[in-house]
Amino acid sequence: MSLSNIMFNKCLSFVGLVSFVSFAAAAPPSSVPQTAQEMGLMVGSPPKKTIDIAKWDKGPYNRWAFQHMSEIVPTAVISRGMQPRTEFVSAPVESITQLKFTTLDDQELTVEENLKLNYTDSFIVLKGGKVVLEKYYNGMGPETRHLLMSVSKSVTGAVIGSLIEAGELSPDNKVVDYIPELKNSPGFKDATVRQILDMTTAIQFSEDYADPNAEVVKHEEATAWRGQTSTAKDGLYAFAQEIQRVERNHGEVFHYASINTDILGWLIERATGERFSDYMSNIVWSKLGAERDALLSVDLLGSPVVNGGFVMTTRDLARFGQMILQGGHFNGQQIVPKEWIEDIRMNGNNAAWKPTSYSKIWPDGFYRSQWYVTKDDQGSFFGVGVNGQHLWINPTTNVVIVKFSSYPISADVKRGKQDWAMMDAIARSLK
Amino acid sequence: MSLSNIMFNKCLSFVGLVSFVSFAAAAPPSSVPQTAQEMGLMVGSPPKKTIDIAKWDKGPYNRWAFQHMSEIVPTAVISRGMQPRTEFVSAPVESITQLKFTTLDDQELTVEENLKLNYTDSFIVLKGGKVVLEKYYNGMGPETRHLLMSVSKSVTGAVIGSLIEAGELSPDNKVVDYIPELKNSPGFKDATVRQILDMTTAIQFSEDYADPNAEVVKHEEATAWRGQTSTAKDGLYAFAQEIQRVERNHGEVFHYASINTDILGWLIERATGERFSDYMSNIVWSKLGAERDALLSVDLLGSPVVNGGFVMTTRDLARFGQMILQGGHFNGQQIVPKEWIEDIRMNGNNAAWKPTSYSKIWPDGFYRSQWYVTKDDQGSFFGVGVNGQHLWINPTTNVVIVKFSSYPISADVKRGKQDWAMMDAIARSLK
Repeated sequence: MSLSNIMFNKCLSFVGLVSFVSFAAAAPPSSVPQTAQEMGLMVGSPPKKTIDIAKWDKGPYNRWAFQHMSEIVPTAVISRGMQPRTEFVSAPVESITQLKFTTLDDQELTVEENLKLNYTDSFIVLKGGKVVLEKYYNGMGPETRHLLMSVSKSVTGAVIGSLIEAGELSPDNKVVDYIPELKNSPGFKDATVRQILDMTTAIQFSEDYADPNAEVVKHEEATAWRGQTSTAKDGLYAFAQEIQRVERNHGEVFHYASINTDILGWLIERATGERFSDYMSNIVWSKLGAERDALLSVDLLGSPVVNGGFVMTTRDLARFGQMILQGGHFNGQQIVPKEWIEDIRMNGNNAAWKPTSYSKIWPDGFYRSQWYVTKDDQGSFFGVGVNGQHLWINPTTNVVIVKFSSYPISADVKRGKQDWAMMDAIARSLK
Repeated sequence: MSLSNIMFNKCLSFVGLVSFVSFAAAAPPSSVPQTAQEMGLMVGSPPKKTIDIAKWDKGPYNRWAFQHMSEIVPTAVISRGMQPRTEFVSAPVESITQLKFTTLDDQELTVEENLKLNYTDSFIVLKGGKVVLEKYYNGMGPETRHLLMSVSKSVTGAVIGSLIEAGELSPDNKVVDYIPELKNSPGFKDATVRQILDMTTAIQFSEDYADPNAEVVKHEEATAWRGQTSTAKDGLYAFAQEIQRVERNHGEVFHYASINTDILGWLIERATGERFSDYMSNIVWSKLGAERDALLSVDLLGSPVVNGGFVMTTRDLARFGQMILQGGHFNGQQIVPKEWIEDIRMNGNNAAWKPTSYSKIWPDGFYRSQWYVTKDDQGSFFGVGVNGQHLWINPTTNVVIVKFSSYPISADVKRGKQDWAMMDAIARSLK
């Protein structure tokens, strides 16, 4: 595996200090990226420049596609129900945009500069549940839904909590106890629900996009993200049954592999007998006072692509984040069990995290139930997705931040770190 | 063309009295149709019974598909904007469900019987803008969006009014004045905007589903309603350019052909430089106080399938209908020009309507700007779509009725007439 492959590994699961060093000398992005409109993407009737469906999630196509996901892939509706929406109080803190922060590779930028330069589509900061900053770019607005990519994993890891607290799913059981079909999968047949949740399954799953034989390539085909291929027609769960084992014990190393999350989606559907989109609506979305129905990418058989396929407004993800910050209590009710969120924040396995390069930034951290928990002095924890999707929570200063972006390259480590540094600095500044 | 083909012609554009007579002896539907859930459609993870994508709009698949359109075809979002929703006052009139009515073939049924038997998904009746009856079936609820089929045409014919009143489009101009590409189409190159609006273009376009060479077959492929075929990849507007002429003058006969409406969509995009979904959001949906974003089927190039592809909640179509009833004024503002709606109701061409079988029911009626205007003693006018989609407006009793259904057969004339008779009877009863 080449250095660049390691560095551009999907979802920032890069390995080793090299990735820091190699970028230290790079200049910060110095030009403001063009909007989809400025590039003429999907402008005209019929449009002259259409989206290359094989590359919709890469630049420049993703500048348009991430805001138009229901035109790109099949999506199920996650209903907000019929209740009134929860209203945000606005309490602008103008100084945030001029806040200077130092990126992890020692560049100094203001928040405003970074937002303009770093392919931002939207950005919102909540302090104590109030909106202190809200910005939109690239044709986006508060009404626009945007793809979450792997922030979807953290959403999934939270919403499964109700089933686990209710005893409908036990983390200690094997996944085959709920999904007998996974007996066919060498990778998953001995894995427990907890190992799936924490991505410590010892499965053969490369997220190296540069390798056409990498499992991630066929995985994306299976999700219908690459069109109606024969793999897509067999569906996501047929693919899951093919996953192979590597020579390591389950449970020992945090090995980021998106297919784990899709197994969680399958577990939820099996445990409830409901479609994931209906479960999510009943258990969370109809209680949150969400402004809008969310969408969820589904494969060609209707199975949920929970590893990366949620689509929602910036404010609705902020509502979700605020609910998590508040220990699962929001809009006058307990939505996700408090114990589940405490477990996420407290009970991870640092030993499994140590071999990853995350430990160079957050040595005491861990990955628990699909959340990155930094164990920094603020107790910050977060979700992150390729191309710059972020949900950052600082429980010390009571800050929730959402950033939706359309970085041109999937796992752009430099851009990702730059956004982490910005969000951390903003959260710390709002004492 | 066989009798059955004539009778099951798409969108009830049947020809001649035969269609009335032949059904006179048929028994009314006597069994309550199964719900999608009862049939096990899309139940299970992955589902055992999935939707046949080649037949998603036919029974039994449409029992599920019409409520899950964003999983079936690419859909653009028509944003409701950020304004508060307009609230409905509820003023139930319990007696409506027991109202008896006589179908056009002399069967007697109660409203409740017909709703249960005639594949209803949802049904709402507004009297003076208040909800007097609202019913849901087959797993549907007030939050569920449903496909409008050709009621979409009436929506399109209304929303184009603002552009015409503003002089951005002139009904007297030729379509090629706005869309030079249609010079390539023998069918459209000499047609005016008015002829397109009223479907009096003399084009070769058969909506006979039983004929594999019928234009409607390729039309549906071009819209991406039959999957990602090569015709779909060329898009709707490539297909439109192929349309041929028949030997008749434009403007003389109402000849129902769905492709006309898609030309209206193209005209709107050309006149505004906007995508149809954005235009519709700006001009109508963000002003209506709609409860939910609507969806609109788009082809593989992103062009709008306005002939049949709107997807919205029952209440939101009722809001739209109430706006039309009120001469375009709703939620404190003029949304569609009053003159445009008056023109629809008053200025149609009865001579063009006379050769069709509609004239046997409504001898004084006409088809104007994508609306069926009965010119009955109530001044009733309506939109109708295959498989039982209805928007019925009675301006004498101030009644608006929406019925969404999933009849198993596209153009089931008997079921359609039964619903017309019911809606007419309800509207007349609410004096």
